[in-house]
Amino acid sequence: METLNDVFEHTLQDIYYAEQALTKAIPKAQRAACHPELKDALSTHLHETRKQIERLEEVFADLGEKPVTKMCAGMKGLLKEGDEGLQKGLSGPLGDALIIANAQRVEHYEISAYGTAIAWARQLDLDEVADLLDESLDEEAGADEKLTAIAEGGLLTAGLNEEAVARK
Amino acid sequence: METLNDVFEHTLQDIYYAEQALTKAIPKAQRAACHPELKDALSTHLHETRKQIERLEEVFADLGEKPVTKMCAGMKGLLKEGDEGLQKGLSGPLGDALIIANAQRVEHYEISAYGTAIAWARQLDLDEVADLLDESLDEEAGADEKLTAIAEGGLLTAGLNEEAVARK
Repeated sequence: METLNDVFEHTLQDIYYAEQALTKAIPKAQRAACHPELKDALSTHLHETRKQIERLEEVFADLGEKPVTKMCAGMKGLLKEGDEGLQKGLSGPLGDALIIANAQRVEHYEISAYGTAIAWARQLDLDEVADLLDESLDEEAGADEKLTAIAEGGLLTAGLNEEAVARK
Repeated sequence: METLNDVFEHTLQDIYYAEQALTKAIPKAQRAACHPELKDALSTHLHETRKQIERLEEVFADLGEKPVTKMCAGMKGLLKEGDEGLQKGLSGPLGDALIIANAQRVEHYEISAYGTAIAWARQLDLDEVADLLDESLDEEAGADEKLTAIAEGGLLTAGLNEEAVARK
């Protein structure tokens, strides 16, 4: 019989897999990105992702568990979708818009996964663990907001519009 | 050369695929759910999903396009993850907690996808289309909040805790 402890640990392993996979996926997106603010945002988020991995390792240690990854089909699919976007070989604002769209789907996956993990940690009276995970959740939400700001504050108006209007 | 129009249409086809797939996935989750509020929330969201499909068909018609689905790897992975959760055969509050966790990942995928589509529609001066998509985005965000309220407002405290503490 599985318990909340078990499903909580599986979720941590899911997230640990997701963050590890992102340390490989973010540099690919960063190389493909053109807009300097987007390149910077991806670089900052790669750094945050590495901190999040360390936090998860701290959580596993607190729980007396070894850090283990568990492949999660959801994140794997999202990364595949991101790769398909990059393979289109679009550059400039349109390529950047696609990178942002895919990155925001990944951020939202993580926002949701951390949200669940935090609720379960609090339920299990693991408040210190919940606080650590909360720091990562804040970073994910911040990264998502920054991507929206980049998309809305210049990137989309920089050249995409004329291109698109030309085709209408 | 692809344009913003093209990637916007692809995104609409992605979302159309996702919503169609959900009309099959939600009833499975609803049958497996135990908590009456969760069953109700899933039933309400199934109804909303059908409205969202009609809205997308209205959007395709406005654009002079046929409504076409395009399989998106991200949503496919999320649904696979949800199925794996159901296949564990957990019932009661623990099974419900897993259903909520998976449903919230799906909601966040949709929140992100609609958010992107709305930004692109506004960029393309398709304000009526953006307004229609905005109605669906509001429903997705509302469904996510309702699931959080169910998880935090009784479900998790109903029996999960004792079960989990017993194992500590």
